Amino acid sequence: MARVTERRRTVRLQGPSRSARPDSLAAEEPLEIRINGTALTVSMRTPGHDFDLVAGFLVAEGLVAGLDQLTALRYCAGAADEGGNSYNVIDATLPHRAAAPATLHRNLLTSSACGICGRETIEAIRTRVPHDLTADRLRITPDTLYGLPDKLRAAQAVFDATGGLHAAGLFTADGRLLCLREDVGRHNAVDKVVGWALREGLLPLHGQVLMVSGRASFELTQKAAMAGIPLLAAVSAPSSLAVDLAEELGLTLVGFLRNHSANVYTSAERILEPAAQQG
Amino acid sequence: MARVTERRRTVRLQGPSRSARPDSLAAEEPLEIRINGTALTVSMRTPGHDFDLVAGFLVAEGLVAGLDQLTALRYCAGAADEGGNSYNVIDATLPHRAAAPATLHRNLLTSSACGICGRETIEAIRTRVPHDLTADRLRITPDTLYGLPDKLRAAQAVFDATGGLHAAGLFTADGRLLCLREDVGRHNAVDKVVGWALREGLLPLHGQVLMVSGRASFELTQKAAMAGIPLLAAVSAPSSLAVDLAEELGLTLVGFLRNHSANVYTSAERILEPAAQQG
Repeated sequence: MARVTERRRTVRLQGPSRSARPDSLAAEEPLEIRINGTALTVSMRTPGHDFDLVAGFLVAEGLVAGLDQLTALRYCAGAADEGGNSYNVIDATLPHRAAAPATLHRNLLTSSACGICGRETIEAIRTRVPHDLTADRLRITPDTLYGLPDKLRAAQAVFDATGGLHAAGLFTADGRLLCLREDVGRHNAVDKVVGWALREGLLPLHGQVLMVSGRASFELTQKAAMAGIPLLAAVSAPSSLAVDLAEELGLTLVGFLRNHSANVYTSAERILEPAAQQG
Repeated sequence: MARVTERRRTVRLQGPSRSARPDSLAAEEPLEIRINGTALTVSMRTPGHDFDLVAGFLVAEGLVAGLDQLTALRYCAGAADEGGNSYNVIDATLPHRAAAPATLHRNLLTSSACGICGRETIEAIRTRVPHDLTADRLRITPDTLYGLPDKLRAAQAVFDATGGLHAAGLFTADGRLLCLREDVGRHNAVDKVVGWALREGLLPLHGQVLMVSGRASFELTQKAAMAGIPLLAAVSAPSSLAVDLAEELGLTLVGFLRNHSANVYTSAERILEPAAQQG
């Protein structure tokens, strides 16, 4: 089975000097996802927690909302060059979804009228999100929020080795880390966290906080919402469409969370006032 | 037409203080790409240089190798909510490619045997790259290489406003910036640079250098190779599969290019020895 990191030789340049040395790199391998035996998509990911990745992907795509809708996940044994299993093909058994691939393609090209725009994209997601995030009673103190980046970073084992992975972490409202996943793709790291929660029977993730390294895109906001998460925090900037989607759904979107400061773009009422912290 | 940045209100938290203020965000909007009238894909991007983006995407997918294979690019006028053009749908006219979408899907799912693995993925790309990168005579000094990150960063207008965009820059062997593009997606920024080169009649980009913010993935390495670029440099880490693909193709892959140092993972002979710099 593929490893999370791999060693490669490198020539290290530093000012005028040059030396050969080995380097640890984040592994990247293709993963094919099949539903009921039919190939759906191939994408690149860092091997490890693959069942979580597939489960979370299915939640984000609206194909699975609970454990009862996912009968089985298995590596497809078969014809790698050397006759062994490449562990890069996973088949998901969905009892009520024989025709899932076609459905997904329809979603992907849902707005094929000429007028495709952010507004329509948001509307399409809004109708698919099975949770009312506006009703979520999560409250979090600024200090708890400020503490999340260090906790995320401290738990990133593979980043330490390679200097190159994205991370997603699921936290409780009082800042306890429930699950951390790393991947070359930020969206994969989020899928792995959500898939872990599904397989643990924890969905929807009401009252929880998702923290990601890097930026907050439309896609990550969508994934958080599909899992029922009321607060998405990012180390770096959100995009305009991420903010618009969060606004529409009642999800709290926090950006630039670093150095004991943050920007709250939507539903700021979930961040307690300092007075309330003390009282 | 959509703008590259958009303003949103934000609540700024800093230590115990809280204040309302506006913030500039990188715009993100869906873009649907059609080929000869048939929808191929919808993805998120930062508006701006859209024709470059589509042209570069078509080069990366192996559908277009020269200007003569791309008859026209046009925004599909049509049915936005308000009856105007959303500028989010582009139709590409490819004279020899009536059936392009099916071809692309085949490529995407090319290895649907159970043994899909990085090795096979690399082999699939190798057969598609129309350039012999091993024959490229590019040579670059370490000092020129060390100077690229600052030049890239200095040219990033939108990043300065939003703190949140990826960039790709095309440089000559002596470090002159030819083209810089920014986007919420790093792969889009690269597509925009390559598409610019195609539309300027500059492909293939022999002897040139591509520099990207962030990491170097398999996908970015593939895009560089499809454009004939012999050297890809990244501010951060490459993945294992990016290194393996670069090795196979004879492309020079440079990572961790910052603070007057760098790691050269493949084809290091293109980086001149310091002695050669002085002579």
